[in-house]
Amino acid sequence: MKLNQNIIDMEYAVRGRIPIRAAELRRQGRKTIPCNIGNPQALGQKPITFYRQVLSLLEEPNRIKIERNNQDSHLSDYVLDYAENFLEKMETGMGAYTDSKGPLFIREAVAKYIDARDAKSPEGILHANPEHIFLTDGASEGAKNVLELLITATEDGIMIPIPQYPLYSATIQRCGGTQVNYYPDEENGWTLDREELQRSCDEATANGVNIKAVVVINPANPTGAILDRDSIKQVVEFSLENRLAIIADEVYQENLYGGEFISFASAVKGTDVPLFSLHSASKGFYGECGHRGGYLEVRNLPQVDDNNIPFIDVLFKQASVNLCSNTVGQALMYLIANPPEIESEQYQQFIHERQSILDDLFDKATMVRSAFDEMEGVECFGKTGAMYLFPRLNILPKDTGDFEYCMTLLEKTGLTTVNGSGFGQKKGTHHLRFAFLPPKEMLERVLPEWIAFHKNYIR
Amino acid sequence: MKLNQNIIDMEYAVRGRIPIRAAELRRQGRKTIPCNIGNPQALGQKPITFYRQVLSLLEEPNRIKIERNNQDSHLSDYVLDYAENFLEKMETGMGAYTDSKGPLFIREAVAKYIDARDAKSPEGILHANPEHIFLTDGASEGAKNVLELLITATEDGIMIPIPQYPLYSATIQRCGGTQVNYYPDEENGWTLDREELQRSCDEATANGVNIKAVVVINPANPTGAILDRDSIKQVVEFSLENRLAIIADEVYQENLYGGEFISFASAVKGTDVPLFSLHSASKGFYGECGHRGGYLEVRNLPQVDDNNIPFIDVLFKQASVNLCSNTVGQALMYLIANPPEIESEQYQQFIHERQSILDDLFDKATMVRSAFDEMEGVECFGKTGAMYLFPRLNILPKDTGDFEYCMTLLEKTGLTTVNGSGFGQKKGTHHLRFAFLPPKEMLERVLPEWIAFHKNYIR
Repeated sequence: MKLNQNIIDMEYAVRGRIPIRAAELRRQGRKTIPCNIGNPQALGQKPITFYRQVLSLLEEPNRIKIERNNQDSHLSDYVLDYAENFLEKMETGMGAYTDSKGPLFIREAVAKYIDARDAKSPEGILHANPEHIFLTDGASEGAKNVLELLITATEDGIMIPIPQYPLYSATIQRCGGTQVNYYPDEENGWTLDREELQRSCDEATANGVNIKAVVVINPANPTGAILDRDSIKQVVEFSLENRLAIIADEVYQENLYGGEFISFASAVKGTDVPLFSLHSASKGFYGECGHRGGYLEVRNLPQVDDNNIPFIDVLFKQASVNLCSNTVGQALMYLIANPPEIESEQYQQFIHERQSILDDLFDKATMVRSAFDEMEGVECFGKTGAMYLFPRLNILPKDTGDFEYCMTLLEKTGLTTVNGSGFGQKKGTHHLRFAFLPPKEMLERVLPEWIAFHKNYIR
Repeated sequence: MKLNQNIIDMEYAVRGRIPIRAAELRRQGRKTIPCNIGNPQALGQKPITFYRQVLSLLEEPNRIKIERNNQDSHLSDYVLDYAENFLEKMETGMGAYTDSKGPLFIREAVAKYIDARDAKSPEGILHANPEHIFLTDGASEGAKNVLELLITATEDGIMIPIPQYPLYSATIQRCGGTQVNYYPDEENGWTLDREELQRSCDEATANGVNIKAVVVINPANPTGAILDRDSIKQVVEFSLENRLAIIADEVYQENLYGGEFISFASAVKGTDVPLFSLHSASKGFYGECGHRGGYLEVRNLPQVDDNNIPFIDVLFKQASVNLCSNTVGQALMYLIANPPEIESEQYQQFIHERQSILDDLFDKATMVRSAFDEMEGVECFGKTGAMYLFPRLNILPKDTGDFEYCMTLLEKTGLTTVNGSGFGQKKGTHHLRFAFLPPKEMLERVLPEWIAFHKNYIR
């Protein structure tokens, strides 16, 4: 039986050979430390109490009354009111299919959240339209739908940064399109400039590729770098001039540790550059990966040529075939968009939990960066964002690459990382991606082991 | 901007023009009765108490201890133990990505559930393999993955029954393959026979189509018919002789109302016919559509030709790009596979709720069938299964079809159904699909209106 060659050929290193080997080791009783994937709760990060209290009530609505009548209830009136209010708006409860885009009141909340996020931008806001927001099962679903819609033939090209999150290369492959690489400037903190974008575009076009869109991941995966205002501007100007859409993967927009996030929604204001912006409940300080919540927001939708069908209707039809995204993920996006109010009983706890998680992540990133300083030939560029560091390995044994490095690191120390080649990288360079999620005590124990391993390995 | 024509062309009537019009009417303040979709909880069906009590605890694990210390807790020790036990096995909790196939312990539970289901079959069981089970976001995801994997070129054909659930036609269209129709025998209760299957296959083959698989939906959607043992046997023999895979959509396997369900897993025993069997948490007596739980079970996997990659690995890679299905849907599949034990405190309530829901559904189907008896030229064939009736409309005004009938029915009575043409039907016939889910009181009110409408409409 012949299978789809695009799927056979597709590569997905984040769940590829190294994590598969790690799973084998665990079955043999070895301890491994999974730094190959941004999965914070698998490494002990606690969920936000408020979110889970609400979700718990949504699954069992009659508990709201029970808790109100229980003088010793551990739940505040605020939580009970919040859940009751949610269920009133979510008329058919958690067990029914919703509108294919997700319930309107959640999309309205997300639109307000986007507006509030962008209110401080120098461009000022252009209100988000709830009808142009689609709730999705994680951000991956949104990304796949957009790519599937844009790729109509082998010569259709999608520009992606190298290194990139392999969802993009895998999906372009699966849809039968052409991957077109551009290279952020590593030594300048992974910044972007128009010359490089234009070079990439022109070379591909000269080879007969019809470029449709440019993917930007900010804060970046795998590099963790945060794009500065100038980089964002260069992407928008480039897209405008070349009539391309922007696919902005902004799932790490709340993983900043002091840097500034500039949204593409604010940056495309005043232009007609089509924008597909993705967000997720899996990342941020919440890290609710398992719940698979997310959204796709679209702006400046172009007319669909020839056949007068509005673009938004085609996106809607695509969403319809999936019926709807899961309601718990939808509820999480609502919670993210609608955190406890400042005057509420829950606010202090919420803020404390959020800040502790972000502080802890930044401390851990700093610990790991310090360890790199003790490793000969290891350099790490860019501001710290997302959940990743992507150090360059300047010294490796002759005729070996980063795959061998990561595999040996796993075998010797249990540390599970992903080789830079799994994300793509500039020819002749070697990297690895490290998700800085393990508890500090674990890092304190394993980082010296890694330093010792490194010294020995590159000798 | 040119979009994927396959997606522009794809049709999905279940969420198509009639439900879109119904939504418009609701916005204008009209009451509508959504019988266009199998979404029981949207029409007042209550969730199974036990399931929701467990899900509620899973979201807020520290409540297990709180409830144990609360003498007035409304939860039984059995529920608390069940949730605690689940969380012990689900080591990383509900907020972490799981294995891409889903956690092993849930797949083991599903394998046992399949074995128990088939234990009574005359063929005897061949144990389900947990490694060949993939937990999915609803059954739709599994169906789409399988079709995407099998369709490699325009001439690749997938046989589907007419009428069919439009997920199949839409996905075949989207993947760029060829839809090949076969026709169950309506007047014989929508049974299948080899001659018709072979005719369909031979005609397509003569036209250059390379048929890869045959889709069977049992109990059927949209007809609600339950396939008898002979029909199942004919499909297996046909597939064996023609070297085809079977895609068995068995999401309604617990919606039987007295009929007998014969699984394809039992029917392919002793053959090498590849089987992809789909199930879902959205249907059955649970009807948890919004939670998007489901699984794909594969049997008799063929070797992948040429390039020695095991088929299962390609399916796994496909699942990996999605990271994992949502954990709450996974937990629901576990609950469905592992109902309360007979000796438990929860058992009586669980059985009572299950039986009430199934009895209520059957009563409602009977009410609607009786109404059909009073409508001239309306005939409904097949045993009642699933959540649907699919009456044939033998009399319609000249030069009109079932679409006009359903649209006018909506405008006049608020009843939202789907026209038979949305599922495909034998040329020259007209039908509609009616999901028999509204509360009895609502049916008692609206069925006479429908009868009156019908009398007037066909005059």
